[in-house]
Amino acid sequence: MVDQDEHKARMQRLKASVDRRIEAAQQEKGLVIVYTGAGKGKTTAALGMALRCIGHGMKVAVVQFIKGAIDTAEERALKSFGDRVTFLRMGEGYTWETQNRERDTQFARRAWEKAGEFLCDPSYPMVILDEFNIALQHGYVDVADVLPVLRARPPMQHVVITGRAASDVLIAEADLVTEMKQVKHPFRKGIKAQAGVEF
Amino acid sequence: MVDQDEHKARMQRLKASVDRRIEAAQQEKGLVIVYTGAGKGKTTAALGMALRCIGHGMKVAVVQFIKGAIDTAEERALKSFGDRVTFLRMGEGYTWETQNRERDTQFARRAWEKAGEFLCDPSYPMVILDEFNIALQHGYVDVADVLPVLRARPPMQHVVITGRAASDVLIAEADLVTEMKQVKHPFRKGIKAQAGVEF
Repeated sequence: MVDQDEHKARMQRLKASVDRRIEAAQQEKGLVIVYTGAGKGKTTAALGMALRCIGHGMKVAVVQFIKGAIDTAEERALKSFGDRVTFLRMGEGYTWETQNRERDTQFARRAWEKAGEFLCDPSYPMVILDEFNIALQHGYVDVADVLPVLRARPPMQHVVITGRAASDVLIAEADLVTEMKQVKHPFRKGIKAQAGVEF
Repeated sequence: MVDQDEHKARMQRLKASVDRRIEAAQQEKGLVIVYTGAGKGKTTAALGMALRCIGHGMKVAVVQFIKGAIDTAEERALKSFGDRVTFLRMGEGYTWETQNRERDTQFARRAWEKAGEFLCDPSYPMVILDEFNIALQHGYVDVADVLPVLRARPPMQHVVITGRAASDVLIAEADLVTEMKQVKHPFRKGIKAQAGVEF
């Protein structure tokens, strides 16, 4: 058992170190946030951030690039916040569902065009580009065309980009990157996709 | 450029393989879901799941073990869903803020007791134990006391447990585990915590 005095002294040192780091971090700016990796939680974390912004009274735009054919429960829940959320389903579904590369490309480009409107609109402090990494990975949209748009956006606007296999170029550009690593997945144990978890 | 016929054939094969896997996964049950790791997105992903459940008309209970002293924007946003969300802030703050191990332990045990009420209540299809891994890691609550409660809960109830450094015992028990790996964090670049991102 740790002695309370010893614990307190250790926590005071830890607090001093945390406080110093907080003191040193003074810059404020809109961030490019990337959630990537094969694990679950990328889109969910992005929508959790939307919820957080809504709680701050900020407006959020969500552009879904790939999963879009599905009318998700999140969409229904977010829409209850009225005009604080703009939710656009711009994709048709996974590549193995559509089976048509040209059509996938068209849809992705249309979504990127739409995203571009939010990315120059300072009335949206957060823009979420869901599964955009997939569109970049498949070359539907060229990452070289994306960087100038990200760089020219309103200085305090946060952008959240999700999807596995984020490109190195995007990771280099980003301020915050989390890789969702799959440690265990129920699908592999024969458990089907369930409401509230997968959709 | 990939030829459309070749693309289509490849996507058809991929679809057949995805469909076979979906066919094989038929079991439905409440899952133990763990979001761990040092990267950002753990609590956010859990609250994104809450949003998803709410969109399905399900009730969600959230018990905050550690960060609880903060009145978060997410809490405000979630509370707008009325009685579909029960949100309990049961912690006081990080260990380096409280600097009192005994008090931290008391708070964590009280939170775990409260969590136990939701974990035997089938009217909650989802229970979120936020930062519970921290309470387990510090030994405020014994993981050996937790397993029987998880195992005895209503069979269709999902439990989401967040916090870095999840115990191996909990990971072994879980159905779905994602490790949020920190690839890049803005704090290290001198950018301060900002509304909508960190809080």
